[in-house]
Amino acid sequence: MENPQIDKIVSQVFIEKALRDFYCAGGTCVGWERNIIDQPGAVKNIIENGADRIAAGLGVGTELGDLSLARMIDHTLLKPEATVEEIETLCKEARQYSFASVCVNPGYVALCHKMLKDTVVKVCTVIGFPLGANKTEIKRHEAELAIQEGAEEIDMVINIGMLKSGNYDYVFKDINQVVLAAKRNNAICKVIIETALLTDEEKIKACVISKEAKADFVKTSTGFSKGGATAGDVALMKRVVGGSVGVKASGGIRTIEDAETMIASGADRIGASASVKIVNRDSSKSTGY
Amino acid sequence: MENPQIDKIVSQVFIEKALRDFYCAGGTCVGWERNIIDQPGAVKNIIENGADRIAAGLGVGTELGDLSLARMIDHTLLKPEATVEEIETLCKEARQYSFASVCVNPGYVALCHKMLKDTVVKVCTVIGFPLGANKTEIKRHEAELAIQEGAEEIDMVINIGMLKSGNYDYVFKDINQVVLAAKRNNAICKVIIETALLTDEEKIKACVISKEAKADFVKTSTGFSKGGATAGDVALMKRVVGGSVGVKASGGIRTIEDAETMIASGADRIGASASVKIVNRDSSKSTGY
Repeated sequence: MENPQIDKIVSQVFIEKALRDFYCAGGTCVGWERNIIDQPGAVKNIIENGADRIAAGLGVGTELGDLSLARMIDHTLLKPEATVEEIETLCKEARQYSFASVCVNPGYVALCHKMLKDTVVKVCTVIGFPLGANKTEIKRHEAELAIQEGAEEIDMVINIGMLKSGNYDYVFKDINQVVLAAKRNNAICKVIIETALLTDEEKIKACVISKEAKADFVKTSTGFSKGGATAGDVALMKRVVGGSVGVKASGGIRTIEDAETMIASGADRIGASASVKIVNRDSSKSTGY
Repeated sequence: MENPQIDKIVSQVFIEKALRDFYCAGGTCVGWERNIIDQPGAVKNIIENGADRIAAGLGVGTELGDLSLARMIDHTLLKPEATVEEIETLCKEARQYSFASVCVNPGYVALCHKMLKDTVVKVCTVIGFPLGANKTEIKRHEAELAIQEGAEEIDMVINIGMLKSGNYDYVFKDINQVVLAAKRNNAICKVIIETALLTDEEKIKACVISKEAKADFVKTSTGFSKGGATAGDVALMKRVVGGSVGVKASGGIRTIEDAETMIASGADRIGASASVKIVNRDSSKSTGY
């Protein structure tokens, strides 16, 4: 994708943002993100503009059935000290609650595949994680090997430094190589843009490039940086990628309220470690794994 | 290495620790680490027991020449958002101060090699970083590719979950495959054990296994976990690996005092982002990169 195209889309999104800010200038809202958090009405406008999958049923304040919520959650355990036993527990919980997937580090893909092969739960793994600063060749190889061992969902991290250096062609190819490796093997690819490290403009560019590179989802966060998913970022990302690409909110989602806020803002998938508490509608702030 | 051998070494180290604790029971020292931080005398005992490279010149309170200190520092920039421009600055500083190496993510190895090929500064990169939870095959491929692009030092992260699960044979092979890839190509390999996530017993086991797997160094931390290098851990690691394997202290080393404490405790190499401040003997707490 050429830079002028990216610039055009960025401009469009910023114009829309400016208009929204203008229309709520007299109220309590300060900036885009505050609007979304404080004003469900503002969220609704955004969802109506961009989040067509959400508009089909889920919205701010609606009740979510446990199973339909569970099918939106990647049950996640990525801490480096996770033991075999903890991963086995993760798989058992995922099977019990019918989560969309378990999301684990590559070293545990084969184990999870073995434990979940006769269930609806997929195995999701992370590539170039969590820094994204690996060579493209290594990301592609890591994705291919994971798929070979049973992964059906691939969450890869973009090269953030190259995005910030303006090397959009590099960022595109880096994503596209992993997407192609996934698609060749009937796996899907989610692209982690690590919103906490990006300006709004960079978030938009990252989403545009990911969509162009044929990603199935864009994903907010690794959970290992200085911040996780925010409602504002989810809404922004959904606005940019539209209905044909999913948005996965991840990082710091610990309660049913957190999950519902993300879904209301446009998230099609939730990454969480506290998934069991979330589907049990438990509001306490335990972190799960 | 068989488990009984590991157990024997762990027992020996713990007996020595118990003896040291006993001998300073009447004083102000509480536990091993406090001894080292609060009591240079205790440090001296430990150094005399284990840190033969340190005993050759550097010790608690001695002055370090700027160049000799610089030659012990890996000038480090691993944050995922590091730009091309920042990496270029890192290389220029490394050349100016004659640091041992620049330590960068794999995506920047070729750039650093180009900038530093006619200097004394080596290119160091990180493998399976920072979680270490990647497949061994990917770690080996990543190391081989980095060496091919000019890296001469390879800092790899162990599989922490497998260590905690008691799969020592897996941990050994994971390290050894990367060590062999390095040695075949005249590069050295440092093994990051991520002390902040380990018990003392696990730290000892990780060091024993690393030494058995022919690592050139053991290294405390990635800088991306919940804690960095401590004087106590450095002394413990030096005690376990002895004189033939180096100890690299990394994570949270921001001042000349931090660096001198680590060296006094047995560190042969320092990983730091604030390297320029350190060699300029600046005591302020800036974080460098």
